Amino acid sequence: MENDIIFGKNSVMEALIAGKREINKILISKNIHTDVKIAKIKELAQEKGIVFQFVGKEKFQPYAEYNHQGIIAQISPIKYMELEDFIENSTDKFRSLVILDGVEDSHNLGAIIRTCVCAGVDGIIIPSRRNVQVNSVVEKTSAGAINHIPIIKVNSLINAVQTLKDNNWWIVSADASASDNYYDVKYDDMNFALVMGAEHAGVSKSLLKASDFVVKIPMQNNFNSLNVSNALSAIIFEALRQKLK
Amino acid sequence: MENDIIFGKNSVMEALIAGKREINKILISKNIHTDVKIAKIKELAQEKGIVFQFVGKEKFQPYAEYNHQGIIAQISPIKYMELEDFIENSTDKFRSLVILDGVEDSHNLGAIIRTCVCAGVDGIIIPSRRNVQVNSVVEKTSAGAINHIPIIKVNSLINAVQTLKDNNWWIVSADASASDNYYDVKYDDMNFALVMGAEHAGVSKSLLKASDFVVKIPMQNNFNSLNVSNALSAIIFEALRQKLK
Repeated sequence: MENDIIFGKNSVMEALIAGKREINKILISKNIHTDVKIAKIKELAQEKGIVFQFVGKEKFQPYAEYNHQGIIAQISPIKYMELEDFIENSTDKFRSLVILDGVEDSHNLGAIIRTCVCAGVDGIIIPSRRNVQVNSVVEKTSAGAINHIPIIKVNSLINAVQTLKDNNWWIVSADASASDNYYDVKYDDMNFALVMGAEHAGVSKSLLKASDFVVKIPMQNNFNSLNVSNALSAIIFEALRQKLK
Repeated sequence: MENDIIFGKNSVMEALIAGKREINKILISKNIHTDVKIAKIKELAQEKGIVFQFVGKEKFQPYAEYNHQGIIAQISPIKYMELEDFIENSTDKFRSLVILDGVEDSHNLGAIIRTCVCAGVDGIIIPSRRNVQVNSVVEKTSAGAINHIPIIKVNSLINAVQTLKDNNWWIVSADASASDNYYDVKYDDMNFALVMGAEHAGVSKSLLKASDFVVKIPMQNNFNSLNVSNALSAIIFEALRQKLK
């Protein structure tokens, strides 16, 4: 299997700390100014016996479009979790999932992963088609969060939703035309999966139909154009608020 | 005064609809496929007597780095509001402000403006230095939201905060080391200004000291790295929830 490349100090550091994926090699630009983070990365790499090399800037030429900060790492591809394994790893408390139905922008996916980790979401489901995949931009935008949450890739979202429902999960979809507001749902006494749609198309009809709750964010100023990661943030932190209260 | 350039169908359409800034000219690529949005833009431009020209793609060369979708408009620069004018335009209900202390990324600023408009925030204060300024990327990322909310540019944030406090406003700052959670504040019975800091440095000490409330978002998984626009979204929609409940 080919290696992924991850870019930037934070991403490399996070991958070293998380230790979930095998790091083949770290390349550092000879021209880079050694700051605290670079020093920490070298220390961690030495501890773990991971090779790091100082190389000329021409090695970074293929990655010019990324904000690599003069440091990249070759890393084993992300391991996706199977939905069945996720469901079986049950705990004694209620869990939560985020299901992404057609999110196409890598920066959005990265921001969503960060938000999910910060808000204590237990996993993210993406479809194997139609959605953006976890690539280098996602890794970088997620600031390493990708290493702290299982990503579950499924062939069919509707089948996944049905499997969840059969296993005592409740489905909450966000849709602008809903009549209920997102804060009217009680999130703290169930396993719930929150379905977020593409920015323009929204959640697909079949998923809306299979949902137990469809909720909206009440928009002010007749301006209905919240970025998907910001919409997710409003809803998922409301769910956390209810749990912590 | 020189014109700003705005890019893309949504930005141009929003500027036409909002009608707050003078549009000098709209340039449309000859190669563009005329879809519903382009047709609507032409219709609105004709109604308002705004010139639009079909031009060769070489006219878009200077803007190659932007996602211009084959359409740009020359538009008068954004008009900033004075803080004193904002305060004097008081209404009979409580109002809210977001103060950005050192947000440096254009995409973040654009997402923040969208979130503020959707959540009914009444204005955004940015410092004239240290912060990112409202540029073409911000306009585009804001998806036109920039035309729906006053932007107030001040030389000193600490003076602005003092002026607000003298005028019956309360200051709420977000800081990771706070002891109170953001949902412990009651937002619906006061004029409040929410201060959000730079992603790494946070809110400056002098502003924290001048704040009436300092609040945190309770982070799960020991992962404290929420994108600033997502953090804002969690807090500002909680304030809206309290108002609407």
